[in-house]
Amino acid sequence: MFDLKSYLNKKREIIDTKLSSYIEGDKLLKNAMHYSLMAGGKRLRPILCFAGAEVVGGDAKDCLEFASALEMIHTYSLIHDDLPEMDNDKLRRGKATCHIAFDHGTALLAGDGLLTLAFEVMSDSPNINEKNAVKYLKISSLISKAAGFNGMIEGQILDVESEGKILSLDELEKIHVLKTGEMICASVLSGAIMGEATNKELEDLKVYAQKIGLAFQVRDDILNVVGNPELMGKAVGTDAALNKATYPAIMGLEESKKFAGDLICDALTAIESFDDKAAPLRAIANYILDRKR
Amino acid sequence: MFDLKSYLNKKREIIDTKLSSYIEGDKLLKNAMHYSLMAGGKRLRPILCFAGAEVVGGDAKDCLEFASALEMIHTYSLIHDDLPEMDNDKLRRGKATCHIAFDHGTALLAGDGLLTLAFEVMSDSPNINEKNAVKYLKISSLISKAAGFNGMIEGQILDVESEGKILSLDELEKIHVLKTGEMICASVLSGAIMGEATNKELEDLKVYAQKIGLAFQVRDDILNVVGNPELMGKAVGTDAALNKATYPAIMGLEESKKFAGDLICDALTAIESFDDKAAPLRAIANYILDRKR
Repeated sequence: MFDLKSYLNKKREIIDTKLSSYIEGDKLLKNAMHYSLMAGGKRLRPILCFAGAEVVGGDAKDCLEFASALEMIHTYSLIHDDLPEMDNDKLRRGKATCHIAFDHGTALLAGDGLLTLAFEVMSDSPNINEKNAVKYLKISSLISKAAGFNGMIEGQILDVESEGKILSLDELEKIHVLKTGEMICASVLSGAIMGEATNKELEDLKVYAQKIGLAFQVRDDILNVVGNPELMGKAVGTDAALNKATYPAIMGLEESKKFAGDLICDALTAIESFDDKAAPLRAIANYILDRKR
Repeated sequence: MFDLKSYLNKKREIIDTKLSSYIEGDKLLKNAMHYSLMAGGKRLRPILCFAGAEVVGGDAKDCLEFASALEMIHTYSLIHDDLPEMDNDKLRRGKATCHIAFDHGTALLAGDGLLTLAFEVMSDSPNINEKNAVKYLKISSLISKAAGFNGMIEGQILDVESEGKILSLDELEKIHVLKTGEMICASVLSGAIMGEATNKELEDLKVYAQKIGLAFQVRDDILNVVGNPELMGKAVGTDAALNKATYPAIMGLEESKKFAGDLICDALTAIESFDDKAAPLRAIANYILDRKR
């Protein structure tokens, strides 16, 4: 029986050590970057990157830079998302958001700093050589597209534009696919490409990632209705109070749970041809369905 | 006699066409990115990148991606710099700043989008092959370091922190070196590396770029005292009104002019061993000293 908890803990320790090593020194900007980067994230994207490498027989150690970059991009997006001109959130993972702990301008620049550092990290590995440089560029391109103006940032602006509007399921799904799905996908695939996945493997893993990415978001919406604020480190019921378009709001709570379950089924089906090396990915899919935070 | 005006116009047309091609479609986010990117910038960084390639016998065409990325990073930094939580500027190059023309949240995301696109562009060229991929990564690393938390962004935060303080010349220089000098340096060197510069050539070009980068900033401070607001597309006298640390404020107007002249002399001396292919770099150095906008 695969022990997910110990797998996650081990991988989290590896990525936390690596992430912390990139930002040293005691200056305002570095402190703000470090504060948000080390604020207790689940490290889902780095872990998916590691697991994406391992499932095709690659070595997670080779993916440390990309895993770090994915988490830096994720963290920058949260910092900017929390700013007063966006969601104006004061609490994230049970701690004050960056612009509350520091100030508005510093949080803006800390986000900029993390996004830029992500790309520095991806282009500046001691492991780069003439044989793998094209692969590094390919993954860097994949991640920047997922994070960019046709990916995550477009999802972010659609999310803002949709405030106060009634959305169809298709419209809601589009926002989520762009806002979180693309980066979840890039996480699994960047690991898999580093691990020399075949095209068929990449196709299957892409379906897996798309399905768990959407399920993750549906579960997020569900937790905002039924979650425990202490476990989650943030308030619940906020979506309903803001009249936000969510899966529970559109299809009801029970249907949303069923939908999330179906997505996880689809994800598992997509990778059923893989051998036991897929155990982490399978366990992560189930964890997404059951997670409490 | 080298015709700088026609050189600049030709290069500007090339870079403008390329930049415009990256952002197509009519959506809020793309419109905001396009608005700021095509708002009539001098294109100094792309042109320095082209000239950096040409001076060592390279082809400016090979640098189009890096030149575009440099201008995207510069533009994102201006958009974020102009935001209310930073300098709160309403006018830039004679046009409304991004957050005035659009809104605060859209400007934030347009900046994020341009920064991310810069890295997409650098990693996704059809010209990348196994022979030059390491070089692409090397330049991408150089540019991300110059733009990052030990470069431009650190300069930005030092600039904010210095408001209302009395600075020494060394402190003022440090801010400028980080805030603009590093990216000017990366512009020249990225072109030179693409053009297969020798280490000696890179060293000389680095000194050239450091000197013109600082001279550019000294001239900026001087123009804020004696410039013509109509030519510049922005107000003058604002530094003195805000009691900002500038070269004219610290060393006086005449000394500042002399200092800028000395820096340009040093820049020209650094590249005196180059042949006639250095004509654009030499003319640009003189242009920086005489520029009216």
